[in-house]
Order: sequence, then C-alpha cells, then structure tokens
Amino acid sequence: MVDFYGTHQAGIATAAQDHIAFASFDVVSGSAQELLAMLDSWSAAAARLSTGRPLPGPSDTALPPTDTGEALGLGPSRLTLSWGVGPTLFTIPAGASLRRPSGLVALPNFAGDQLDPTRSDGDLCLQACADDPQVAFHAIHSLARIGEGVVTLRAVQRGFGRTSTTTSAQTTQRNLLGFKDGTNNLLADRPGDLDEFVWLPSGEEPRWMAGGSYLVMRRIRTRLELWGATALSIQEAAIGRSKISGAPLGAHHEHDRVDLAAVGAHGLPVIPEGAHIRVASPEANAGQRILRRGYSFADGIDPASGELDAGLLFISFQRDPRSQFVSLQRRLAANDALHGYLTHTASGLYACPRGINPTQGWGELLTT
Amino acid sequence: MVDFYGTHQAGIATAAQDHIAFASFDVVSGSAQELLAMLDSWSAAAARLSTGRPLPGPSDTALPPTDTGEALGLGPSRLTLSWGVGPTLFTIPAGASLRRPSGLVALPNFAGDQLDPTRSDGDLCLQACADDPQVAFHAIHSLARIGEGVVTLRAVQRGFGRTSTTTSAQTTQRNLLGFKDGTNNLLADRPGDLDEFVWLPSGEEPRWMAGGSYLVMRRIRTRLELWGATALSIQEAAIGRSKISGAPLGAHHEHDRVDLAAVGAHGLPVIPEGAHIRVASPEANAGQRILRRGYSFADGIDPASGELDAGLLFISFQRDPRSQFVSLQRRLAANDALHGYLTHTASGLYACPRGINPTQGWGELLTT
Repeated sequence: MVDFYGTHQAGIATAAQDHIAFASFDVVSGSAQELLAMLDSWSAAAARLSTGRPLPGPSDTALPPTDTGEALGLGPSRLTLSWGVGPTLFTIPAGASLRRPSGLVALPNFAGDQLDPTRSDGDLCLQACADDPQVAFHAIHSLARIGEGVVTLRAVQRGFGRTSTTTSAQTTQRNLLGFKDGTNNLLADRPGDLDEFVWLPSGEEPRWMAGGSYLVMRRIRTRLELWGATALSIQEAAIGRSKISGAPLGAHHEHDRVDLAAVGAHGLPVIPEGAHIRVASPEANAGQRILRRGYSFADGIDPASGELDAGLLFISFQRDPRSQFVSLQRRLAANDALHGYLTHTASGLYACPRGINPTQGWGELLTT
Repeated sequence: MVDFYGTHQAGIATAAQDHIAFASFDVVSGSAQELLAMLDSWSAAAARLSTGRPLPGPSDTALPPTDTGEALGLGPSRLTLSWGVGPTLFTIPAGASLRRPSGLVALPNFAGDQLDPTRSDGDLCLQACADDPQVAFHAIHSLARIGEGVVTLRAVQRGFGRTSTTTSAQTTQRNLLGFKDGTNNLLADRPGDLDEFVWLPSGEEPRWMAGGSYLVMRRIRTRLELWGATALSIQEAAIGRSKISGAPLGAHHEHDRVDLAAVGAHGLPVIPEGAHIRVASPEANAGQRILRRGYSFADGIDPASGELDAGLLFISFQRDPRSQFVSLQRRLAANDALHGYLTHTASGLYACPRGINPTQGWGELLTT
C-alpha cells in the first residue's frame, strides 16, 4: 500500500508499479464551485481506493452500488492516483478564476508528430498506477463515475510492463524494442535529484504548485515491423547500448559509465553521434534531466498500415517543461537515430499540484 | 512452465493464466506448401517460447535479431500458445485441399450483434496466455514475424484479469460488472467433463481433430455506465447471484448449489426467469456445458458514445459449437436479463486441432 497523503503527490516518486491507466477529462460544467467540489470528492475517493477498500455507500439495494466492485478482493496493489490540470482548464468558465502555472504552456509541434487530438490534451488528467491492471482500471472507472455531470472522459490509455526504473531497488525492464529502458533514469530515492529536476520549489506561485511538478504524456508508436527488420548493429547504434546486456557501447555491464568521449576505430565515437543515449544525455541538454515513468502499450492493429499499434506510453515529470521536455524533445526529433522508428500519436502537458494532507481536498487546494 | 506437447493443445485445459493476447490472421500466400511449412515453423517457435527461451538465431550483428527481445528475462510465465483454423481457410487456394471439420460452420447472427468485421473471423487464430502481458504479446509478435509473406495480422485483442476459473485450485475472479464470474465453469481437472463437453473423440474425422476442440471468441462490450446506474437488486436479479459473496440468490456461499426450483415470496422463483445463471444453466440447455476461458478488456473510449470501450473477451471451448455455443447464445440473446447491458462487437469460430509431440509440426498435422 502506498500512502496517498504527503508533501508530494503519490505516483510520481513512487517506485513504478507494473500497470497504468491514464485518463484525460473535459470539464462540461460551467461552475467553478461544482468543479472544485468534484475535485474534493476525487481526492477523498482516491485516498480511500489507495487503501484497497471499496468506495463507501448506502447498503440500500434499491440504489446502484457506490463501488462498481471489480476490484473487490484485489487489495491495494500499490495503487496510486495522481492528477494534473491542462492548459485549457484556464480558458473555460469553470477554470477562468484559477491561477495558471507559468510552465503550463502549449507544447510546440515536433518534427514527425502525428497527434490524434481525441487522445491528446484535456482539461484534467488522472494517472492510476498499480501492480494489478484491474485495480488501475477500477480507479479510473470510479473517479469517472464520481465526475459524471461535471467532466466527461476524453481518453483512456492503458499500459503494462513499466519501462522506467524509478528507485535504485528496481531492476531495469525491457521496452517493446527489446532493449532495457530507463537505466540512467532519475531515481526517486535520491531526493537531491528530484529537488533539482522534478519538484517545484517552496516559493512557487501559485502556491499549490510548490512541491508539485509538470507531467508530459506522449503516446509513442514504435514501428516494430521496421525495427524488427533492422540489423542488430544498427539497432544498437540507434540506442547506444548492447541489446542483450544493456551495457553502453564500448562497456561491459548495464550500469557501466556512459563514456560519450570514447573514440574507436577510424576516429569515430564509440557511441555514435545519433545514439539515443547521447542525444538524450544531460551532457547534450545543458545538464537537464527528467523523471521518466513509462509503460508499454499494445492496442491491436493500426487500420491505416495493418501494422501493430504498439509502443511506449511515455510519461515524464519535470520542474519546467520548457527547459526540460521541450528542449530535449526538439533535440531528439532533430538528431535521434531512433526517431525514424517512432511516431508520436498523442500528447499532453499537465500541471500536477503538490500533495495534500487528510484535512485537505484537491479542489480546495486550487484556491490556495 | 506449461508443457507445449501433449494429446491436447496447451492453453485449453491449462489453469487460466492472468493475461491473454488473441490474434487472428489472413493467409496471403496461395501455396498450401508455404502455409504448412509456416505452421511447422509456428509450432517449433511456440514450443521454444513456452520454455521461456528466446527464438534461436544467428549471432551476426549485420542481420536483424531473430528474437525481438522484449520478453528476455521474463521467464516462461506459464506461456501457452494455442491455434485454430477458421471456416474461411478452406475456401482459399492455400487451404482448399485440406479437410474441413464438420463443426466449423459460419456462426449465425444473434439478436443485438454489432460485429466489427475487422476484429472478427480470420483464416487462423493464435491464443497466447501467460501470467505476464509482455510475454503474451511477445509470443504473438514473434509468430507474426515468422508468418511474414504467408499471413498478415488481422486483429489482436489483449485481455487481463481472467474471468474464468478453469481448475478447482483457482479462486473465482470478478469481471468488469463487479461480479464473480465462472463459479460453475467446467473444471479442467475433472477429465470426464472435458471428454464429454470439450474434446472431440478418438474416431473424429479429419483425424487431426480427434482430441481437438472448437474455440468461440466473442468480444462483448459491457455498457458499464448503464450497469453502474442500475440498482443493486436489479444487477443481482440479472445475474442470479449476490454481488459481494457470489452466492446464488437464496443461498449463502459462492459454491452453494444453484436451486433453480426454489420459490419465494408471491410464488415467484428466487432466481428470476431471466437471470443469467438460469438461462445459461445446463438445465435450460439440454444438459450442455462449455469450458470458458474469459478475460476482461478495456480499450479506451468508444468514439460513437463517449463511453468506455470495455468488457469481456469471451473465449469458450466445446466439442460441437452448434449444439453448445450457438444453442446457448440463441437462448441468451432471447432471454438473458443481462443481454441489454451487452453488445457483441466481434466474433470468431475456429477449429483447434489436437496437440502434437516433439517429432510433429502443426502444418504436418493438417495433412494426417
């Protein structure tokens, strides 16, 4: 069980669970009061569900059950429910009186983006992570029901097989490209790193963002058929690591230091210029880093191509999306050898407020 | 680890795993020889993957890796790969010389069906079940690659949270309606039941169906929003069981006997006339039973309604689809109180040949 309450929201620095259900919502109520009351109901429900208990409700059989029931008996499964607000929230009547965080910009278009607007953006987002997929689904299902009349579901994307290591105790998993993913991710159990790269500082305005973070979601389709027809040497050059061991090219073990300066035969860099781990490295990005919390997805067949509609549900947390994600993604879209195998099909940027204590609610927090 | 070889295919009477990836394929080669050779390659790969080992291949880095790699390190995870042939296989050049099993009929349309042809049918199907979703995905991904040039992927449906108990050692799980599902399923560790209802007998023609079975796949969307707005008493009357305990109405415990004859207040049956467990019962279906191996699915939002596109990936095995599934589903479509909450959105019927031993292949088997 993961504690719902705290300075920071659960589900960001929490050791990544095995499954995710990520949902976005449109606000349909024109009333700020209704919206804030719903958000208070959401946080109360999220706290309850995080303990593994069903939503409380009347036992009158003439009424619909409050809890839909599909997670009964499955326990907490380390469920976390995290939330964020999108840029559009501040442009609609219910959100117009709220203060918009300065980092909550419209993300630019990046080279190669093929974004589906129905899967992107949204006034609000919810990230449910759990070690059981049914527990994560139940959490989104439950909060969508609570929100009826105030919000509508815009999109739900489920993912499995976490592709990011977020604490030093976790082992690195493989993504659908078959490579270990997230070896050099920020680690949540090194608090100094999170303060530098993830959490907004105590003086931040609006005050509800002090201790909060920004969440970027990208649904990245990976062209598995093209990748699968690519020579192992070219796959490894595109990533910059050995496929089986996960070691940086020129090294022997997964956690060996990435030596971007190493030069090999013919004076060429051992880790090629376009290798993903070079282009994404802090050295190539003014020292910037992000906390990734990615998952794999596989949603059947893409009707246009007949190929698998599968890839990476990329989620990252950062203090400032402009100097971190946007800057990094511009560089990747221009220089990353992996980029030709990827298509970004959905996108979202959300401001995730700080955590609350048991006397507070998410809606009330937004007025502080 | 589940043994791939045996009299019957693995994945039918195997204790249901936690995850499924179900795929259908169209044959694009016109050559029976190519098709049968591919099927032999499929069974060799399926046997290998079931042991948790990657596909073997050359270590030449100038070639694409044989194994795509995403399941490396995940172990066997009780992977089973099962296969079947659809009615259309026998109408195309590559399959015209094969003998069509007599039970491999075109399924009729049932009241309320809204079938998506792109998700339905197919010349071949593969069912990959495993306790890890990435292992199940890798199995389908691998066999699709092996089939390149001979078959194309038609549809892939993933599922989680098994909704059927298939051995007496398994506990009953809940479906997305929040009810325990599969309490009175056939149990694979009662061999007499399987011989009576699932396996085709030793004299069956074609011979490759002796020890085989028929697989019915139905993608059943459950209208969770409508169901969630329904009184608990009406939900329980529609199922015929108590939601929390799973006990039949009028009884106390999940595994109490279902007493269809019990009469309550006002002379009305305790288990209502339209209750799912009554309409689906052997008593109402000439004693017939089927082996269910269902999973939940949740595929985001249905664009037409804005509601969750979620429900039950129904899979059943039976000796004769005509006297078992078709007869049962006709009765359910006409009388089941649950039917108004369900929409069948995809369908398939496949003949699943008997199992093989290590000296045989799936293609070779079809010529016996």
